Amino acid sequence: MNKLCIAAIQQQCFADKEQSLAITEAEIEKCAKSGAQLVVLQELHATHYFCQSEDVNAFDLAEPIPGPTTDRISRIAKEFGIVIVGSIFEKRATGLYHNTAVVFETDGSLAGCYRKMHIPDDPGFYEKFYFTPGDADLDDPLQGFRPIKTSLGSLGVLVCWDQWYPEAARLMALAGADLLIYPTAIGWDPNDTGDEQARQLEAWVTVQRGHAVANNIPVIAPNRVGFEPDQTHHTDGIQFWGNSFVCGPQGEILAKAPSNKASNLIVDIDMARTENIRRIWPHFRDRRVDAYKNLTKRYL
Amino acid sequence: MNKLCIAAIQQQCFADKEQSLAITEAEIEKCAKSGAQLVVLQELHATHYFCQSEDVNAFDLAEPIPGPTTDRISRIAKEFGIVIVGSIFEKRATGLYHNTAVVFETDGSLAGCYRKMHIPDDPGFYEKFYFTPGDADLDDPLQGFRPIKTSLGSLGVLVCWDQWYPEAARLMALAGADLLIYPTAIGWDPNDTGDEQARQLEAWVTVQRGHAVANNIPVIAPNRVGFEPDQTHHTDGIQFWGNSFVCGPQGEILAKAPSNKASNLIVDIDMARTENIRRIWPHFRDRRVDAYKNLTKRYL
Repeated sequence: MNKLCIAAIQQQCFADKEQSLAITEAEIEKCAKSGAQLVVLQELHATHYFCQSEDVNAFDLAEPIPGPTTDRISRIAKEFGIVIVGSIFEKRATGLYHNTAVVFETDGSLAGCYRKMHIPDDPGFYEKFYFTPGDADLDDPLQGFRPIKTSLGSLGVLVCWDQWYPEAARLMALAGADLLIYPTAIGWDPNDTGDEQARQLEAWVTVQRGHAVANNIPVIAPNRVGFEPDQTHHTDGIQFWGNSFVCGPQGEILAKAPSNKASNLIVDIDMARTENIRRIWPHFRDRRVDAYKNLTKRYL
Repeated sequence: MNKLCIAAIQQQCFADKEQSLAITEAEIEKCAKSGAQLVVLQELHATHYFCQSEDVNAFDLAEPIPGPTTDRISRIAKEFGIVIVGSIFEKRATGLYHNTAVVFETDGSLAGCYRKMHIPDDPGFYEKFYFTPGDADLDDPLQGFRPIKTSLGSLGVLVCWDQWYPEAARLMALAGADLLIYPTAIGWDPNDTGDEQARQLEAWVTVQRGHAVANNIPVIAPNRVGFEPDQTHHTDGIQFWGNSFVCGPQGEILAKAPSNKASNLIVDIDMARTENIRRIWPHFRDRRVDAYKNLTKRYL
């Protein structure tokens, strides 16, 4: 067994960054002391989910890289000698912002960033107002769907809405990702029926487990938890549904968090299983690359 | 509700075509009399799964289109006024064979064919010996991943090993498929542990439900059932695992067959749900077609 001990932190977040990050830091410490080598945080974990409304003042929450929040994550990574995947509201320039995952090495250095490529926009999730999609200059190896190389392996870091796109998972796998990682902030509209809420949650888990199966690699998906009101009172807020999970390369669930409270998932992943599974299910051998050209079309 | 009544037939098959097809015909009649408008048969349903060994004599089982088996399916479709998706071992020319799905209209006419594009080859599943992969001339609208138009809608017919490839499902959806349909012949190696068998079955269901979720369309997957010995005695045979299922556009299971016996799934699918789901989860709106070019590469 080629063991990698990972942790996924599911927490409630608050408008006050200090309040959110103090919780995060305390939980990272617990995970590190339990043996976690890689800790994955949820999407935009430093603040409340400000995208429930379109508010120009929310841009005050954005930070450059490096900036105070990444400095703090960097320090924690170095202190515990672990790799951390964080998620920040990035100010790239005045009027240019991204939803960006950041990966810090065991020595506190920045291993790489991933700027969310697929940006949602639904009632209560007005992300297109805030975030420019990540760039896709395919000649630039730092853009688009590129895994981030770390001392623990090549991390296929994507963010939330990306998880509905098999293309993103496949491109990360083709580029050598050892793991798929999805920091997430997804939840229920409190007005939906219980049946609809159950279908949405199950769909969210299923599509990501499907990426694990199709690419024969594990998936780590930490999600936000807790209720956050819509501060403009246009909607009834979002009940973030938790259910953070980790699955193996056959999509098998290795750990799952509850829907209603903070939780740390600490899991030993056997990284040798990908080699074994890719021998019995050699999906990469048989891809019809000669017939996939239309995947770059909008519609046929 | 825009209701489509579909049936998926899960059956045991036999070396003798007459024996297999007599069962199929009787079950189709039952489904049609129960209201099914579309009946989907499993992969290579006219015979035993001859790909357990590489045997030149097995080519005797192949038939042209039209041929005796397609004539029979055509007659049944016309008799009951239903659309039928069948699956045959196609002899296209001397020394040129395909694993081909055939779709017959309510008047018995051939609506279209799909030649399996991804061909597996594993111990006990020696399909590369028998089947040339389907062609992929993208200038030919009848080749590659193209839905088959019928009076009941546009059918995204794929076959078995295709089900592990999100690319195939996506291309069918981009080309307007209303449903994904996977005639299948998959089973367990009797020597695998119960845990491994459970993971394999769950992975098979999950990846296909994932295609439903990613593309917001229902999936119909009829699978073979029953034990078939390896007639060359090189392996311990295959326990085809049944578990045929139908799911909706959120991947929600609508019906599921048992693992150990023949079964007809007869399901009312609400085709209006795709419209509704694509409004709340507009995956097609946000595809990054500018960043998907490398999907046509073998590896990066």
